Amino acid sequence: MDYAKKALEVHQEHQGKISIVSKVSVSNKDELSIAYTPGVAEPCRKIAEKREEVYKYTSKGNLVAVVSDGSAVLGLGDIGPEAAMPVMEGKAVLFKEFAGIDAFPICVDTKDVDEIVDLVKKLSPTFGGINLEDISAPRCIEIEKRLKKELDIPVFHDDQHGTAIVVVAGLINALKLVNKNWEDIKIVVNGPGAAGSAIVKMLLNMHAKNILVCGKTGILYEGKEDNDELKEELAKITNPNNEKGTLEDALKNADVFIGVSAPNVVTKEMVESMNKENIVFAMANPIPEIMPSLAKEAGARVVGSGRSDFANQINNVLAFPGIFKGALSVRASDINEEMKVAAARAIAEIIDENELNEEYIIPKPFDKRIVENVAKAVAKAAKDTGISRI
Amino acid sequence: MDYAKKALEVHQEHQGKISIVSKVSVSNKDELSIAYTPGVAEPCRKIAEKREEVYKYTSKGNLVAVVSDGSAVLGLGDIGPEAAMPVMEGKAVLFKEFAGIDAFPICVDTKDVDEIVDLVKKLSPTFGGINLEDISAPRCIEIEKRLKKELDIPVFHDDQHGTAIVVVAGLINALKLVNKNWEDIKIVVNGPGAAGSAIVKMLLNMHAKNILVCGKTGILYEGKEDNDELKEELAKITNPNNEKGTLEDALKNADVFIGVSAPNVVTKEMVESMNKENIVFAMANPIPEIMPSLAKEAGARVVGSGRSDFANQINNVLAFPGIFKGALSVRASDINEEMKVAAARAIAEIIDENELNEEYIIPKPFDKRIVENVAKAVAKAAKDTGISRI
Repeated sequence: MDYAKKALEVHQEHQGKISIVSKVSVSNKDELSIAYTPGVAEPCRKIAEKREEVYKYTSKGNLVAVVSDGSAVLGLGDIGPEAAMPVMEGKAVLFKEFAGIDAFPICVDTKDVDEIVDLVKKLSPTFGGINLEDISAPRCIEIEKRLKKELDIPVFHDDQHGTAIVVVAGLINALKLVNKNWEDIKIVVNGPGAAGSAIVKMLLNMHAKNILVCGKTGILYEGKEDNDELKEELAKITNPNNEKGTLEDALKNADVFIGVSAPNVVTKEMVESMNKENIVFAMANPIPEIMPSLAKEAGARVVGSGRSDFANQINNVLAFPGIFKGALSVRASDINEEMKVAAARAIAEIIDENELNEEYIIPKPFDKRIVENVAKAVAKAAKDTGISRI
Repeated sequence: MDYAKKALEVHQEHQGKISIVSKVSVSNKDELSIAYTPGVAEPCRKIAEKREEVYKYTSKGNLVAVVSDGSAVLGLGDIGPEAAMPVMEGKAVLFKEFAGIDAFPICVDTKDVDEIVDLVKKLSPTFGGINLEDISAPRCIEIEKRLKKELDIPVFHDDQHGTAIVVVAGLINALKLVNKNWEDIKIVVNGPGAAGSAIVKMLLNMHAKNILVCGKTGILYEGKEDNDELKEELAKITNPNNEKGTLEDALKNADVFIGVSAPNVVTKEMVESMNKENIVFAMANPIPEIMPSLAKEAGARVVGSGRSDFANQINNVLAFPGIFKGALSVRASDINEEMKVAAARAIAEIIDENELNEEYIIPKPFDKRIVENVAKAVAKAAKDTGISRI
């Protein structure tokens, strides 16, 4: 199917993809007097007396803002807030269809970190959660960090943590297949950006010890000349043996490759130089770091990518609907590391040991069991870590 | 019916009143690839090439932000953004039910004029129009003025202009009944706030000549000691004979009283001192400036109020749905005076000359003909004044 052509037709036919509807009827005077004046004054009064009642009488508790400045939209780059709307509406559609969450696109006309943080804070009375989307690095990291600190509702940058969660879910199952342990394996993460850094932090939380992160100029190490702040931070928490060299050097005897970088940067020879029973997640989109078939030829045991036309698609839609559903269900004040790890495990365990195979380490997006399983695990982790409010 | 009790039940049962739904199906891989990646990239590209295409491929063109800081909510006063949510959701419900417009509550956590203006500007890529609501005077006037100037989408402060439009609609019909002309009548407006000033400006646009505005300390005149900026401006454009005195003085030989002020400030004797065949719109809510029955006893020919349990309810819901529907339908860049006058006339003309009587000068809220009639008239006025974009 020609998705581009069909997408234009569908978007134009419906004039966008979301609609706001009423949950109550206002077809006569009595109903109007309940949904609006004078009746509406009573829930207003209750909330004015006790702010937390806003969760009881309004839509806030199930309402997520999908916030973008349009600076890093899909593979299209900095296309601006208007052009980002179709993606943010699409995200809202996914929130609804996969988790029953009401999500609303907020495409903002500023790329200034302070201004975005300030704006989202001022909007926060309306929303139960904030999903940051398609904001370019390193600003997205700073924005998320500050909002998490300053707001008492969950804030989640999906491009980072959604990806990280599904990568870890896939690795949990892949490691079972190859019978290796987190503590023993060597992992190479190529792409030291926002997603890469979130992946690294989750890998550490899974007790991986030997992680090398590569950028365009090779393996990151502390004090490397071209390190920016983010890269220096990543170097500090990885590369325990202070190795130097290229991506090619890094991959020698590696057990896992995780690519969030660029098309075709991994060759067949590089995969051949990895340890036996290796795992390759090549997630550059639409053209992966190495095509799955080539990685297989080179001896990779398990291969994943970002594409739906290959096996083992690493797709954020497995994570964010359940993450938010779980967090909102207990009015969590944050989405913390424990909740993310719980989500990854919940995604992984959808696949029974006897179903698990090289072509099926990650469940399919439309598997209805995922969202409930993730939501339950995330809600429990929020309660266990003391950040739930009900 | 106990609206307060019922309202609490209904708001809690549904957890608020609005929901965001998808206009497209995403129940399988192909549909997902059209609504989201990779297909969604194509409408994004089209908008990035030509910003105006955002109206073609997204929900923007039918999407209105209902913006409030919660500082002047109903009769409850400054209850804050969270407690304002039930009203703003209610407004969104009315937009949908009366005009098919998707409206979304934006309750902001700031009362600073600069900050609200700045925030709404930065949000504007997402929306096709801005409805300001329940923001206290005089800030609401300044906020609207600046946003109208700086944005290319319609901005409308409903508490001002919605009320003004329905008042004028009612007066058009009431003047027919009493057989008087705009040019000849003496009008007293009590309450020199945001709504009062919008009413005065529309009355002048209807060619009323003799308007007196009263505040708590009596008739406004130029240079009056306690005039603030707004009152001085109102004094300049009204009171052609530079009269001084109390509300009681003002009402002597007046033809029309318009109250947007406080309960019971008009006595029976004051109405008796008005000209014969006078018109009294007492809109203080829930207790009017004078009860309709008492005004009638005092000789008023036509009486209107803000309440649905009396005849001739002056209700904003007659105006804003059609106003926005008309403005959005032609992508008007503003809602100008001509469009407001067109709306008032369109509301008035719903009532045929042979149906018109003292108890029926304003159509009922649920009269289905209103929104279409208003939208058509408003769209035409936008085109006629050259501010439409299609």
